[in-house]
Amino acid sequence: MTRISFHEMHDTIKSAFLLAGMPEGKANICARIHTETSRDGVYSHGLNRVERFVEYLNKNWVDANGEPNLESALGAMEIFNGNLGPGVLNSLFAMDRSIGLAAELGYGIVSMRNSTHWMRGGTYGWQAAERGFAAICWTNTESCMPAWGSKSECIGNNPFIMAIPRNEGPLVLDMAMSLYSYGRLQVTRLKNQKLPYPGGYDKEGNLTDKPGDIEETRRLLPTGYWKGSGFAVMLDLFSAMLSGGLTTSGVDNAGKGNCGRNNQVFIAFDPHKLNAPEFLEQAINETIAQLKSSIPAYEGGEILYPGEQSMKIRKENNELGIPVDDGVWMRVKELAGR
Amino acid sequence: MTRISFHEMHDTIKSAFLLAGMPEGKANICARIHTETSRDGVYSHGLNRVERFVEYLNKNWVDANGEPNLESALGAMEIFNGNLGPGVLNSLFAMDRSIGLAAELGYGIVSMRNSTHWMRGGTYGWQAAERGFAAICWTNTESCMPAWGSKSECIGNNPFIMAIPRNEGPLVLDMAMSLYSYGRLQVTRLKNQKLPYPGGYDKEGNLTDKPGDIEETRRLLPTGYWKGSGFAVMLDLFSAMLSGGLTTSGVDNAGKGNCGRNNQVFIAFDPHKLNAPEFLEQAINETIAQLKSSIPAYEGGEILYPGEQSMKIRKENNELGIPVDDGVWMRVKELAGR
Repeated sequence: MTRISFHEMHDTIKSAFLLAGMPEGKANICARIHTETSRDGVYSHGLNRVERFVEYLNKNWVDANGEPNLESALGAMEIFNGNLGPGVLNSLFAMDRSIGLAAELGYGIVSMRNSTHWMRGGTYGWQAAERGFAAICWTNTESCMPAWGSKSECIGNNPFIMAIPRNEGPLVLDMAMSLYSYGRLQVTRLKNQKLPYPGGYDKEGNLTDKPGDIEETRRLLPTGYWKGSGFAVMLDLFSAMLSGGLTTSGVDNAGKGNCGRNNQVFIAFDPHKLNAPEFLEQAINETIAQLKSSIPAYEGGEILYPGEQSMKIRKENNELGIPVDDGVWMRVKELAGR
Repeated sequence: MTRISFHEMHDTIKSAFLLAGMPEGKANICARIHTETSRDGVYSHGLNRVERFVEYLNKNWVDANGEPNLESALGAMEIFNGNLGPGVLNSLFAMDRSIGLAAELGYGIVSMRNSTHWMRGGTYGWQAAERGFAAICWTNTESCMPAWGSKSECIGNNPFIMAIPRNEGPLVLDMAMSLYSYGRLQVTRLKNQKLPYPGGYDKEGNLTDKPGDIEETRRLLPTGYWKGSGFAVMLDLFSAMLSGGLTTSGVDNAGKGNCGRNNQVFIAFDPHKLNAPEFLEQAINETIAQLKSSIPAYEGGEILYPGEQSMKIRKENNELGIPVDDGVWMRVKELAGR
């Protein structure tokens, strides 16, 4: 396995984005986010997603120069139009604004309509928590999964993120409403492995742990069966309500394939304004202690809190370099003109 | 199967609560909520939960006269102390207050610490949506489920609710972080049936769909495996942060068995303040149309939106009477002195 330094990966991705027509400052930030995403172990939305993002730029599905503008404000709530700018930049902006509102008022509720793919949702949870703010954010997507009871794609996988700050490192939950992503199915299939748990249906309509069979039917299983399906529908409707933007059905009608014109919601809280942050620190540490002192399901097993695994991978990849798929790395280097 | 009219059930439960020492007005409201809960098909938290609630009153785990008081306010956010009053009354009050804030400011964020079991979480989603408000609410609980990777109870099942208003009837999602409740396991076991999907682990540590085997190990499966486990942890920490109250670990330490001293969070939005409610109505109806026009997994199958099943059961039970377990009904009649 090849490992690449953070600096080299960042620099290479940045060159690819510059060549695709992004301005210097924006290319720099987007390249950093893709690199951090791979560094934290979410390879599918880091380096591996660079080529597809360049394709979005080339097809004008994403406007490299698009910037958010304020559409309306209501106290601690603000609604922006993302103008099809890069979803990563729109989302960093929106979470930053939500943090600003929270610092002033205790909480901020910022929504962004008419945006584009925000890549790894966890990015914005880490963004808030590393600055000492708690956050909830989610996005809607084009349809990529059958609803419960259905066998054709009709709902999004609408990732949902919760993050909370802590001196020793934040807790960050980042979960999509499909149990597994297509990226995970592909990686598992290429290794000739099975999924740990059934992740969708085969063409006979039976639940299966064979990734290739699910890729064939496109019948992804919602997280928690009927629950993730219903949660996806509600996240979609809330994002449309809070942003005045398109639902999954509207995003589908605007043209499937690029997740364009979707919406994101960013809610931030300032623990300093809510009650003593020491209280929160203690509550978190007691909770982690309760998790860690429970009985492992398997001998020697470890009970992790949300985000703990990401922090371990981050540390390892910072020390050893970020693992890459050689083919993907070659392709990004080509896009960077190297 | 015996069916009881709404009026008779309400009247009987009210008598039981009066005999247990509740004041007239409070007994009336609590009895109505338990009856509505059974009427909507959530039998486990309706009539079937009356005896246990009476036990809570008798043991002074719930203070029949406890009333919430405002602890602090920050614009659209208010924190109340529930003073161990009936969780149903505390929660109706808090959602009502959140709706009031939303009507004035666009959104309301109300938290209630030091409360007690709120029974069916969906109650407060329906409460908001039937008055034209969108809502998100959740509660923490004492620990009742192993975290992912653990085999001993260390996290709550922390039900989470999202509701959105609609002219033809609201959409309401009401989901706990355990795939099945103990109530569901019991009902399934008594019918000598299996669960539709594996719902926990047997004593060999294997996933099983046999409810009795799970009741024995108390190893409930989190909704969506690692996802529901992480979501439960974050909901717990957010409820403590937003209310200044106890986490699941704190509730456990305060004395397990009654879910006392837990916290609830109630967020409401007024669609009229956010953007045209006609927009929301159209977005919801397009989304439902997309669900309904997808291909059913089984011939003749139906794809339901969140809350649709409850509305069907409500209609049927309003017309035919509310089905009861004869033993449970007898016992509640005894508690009512009949």
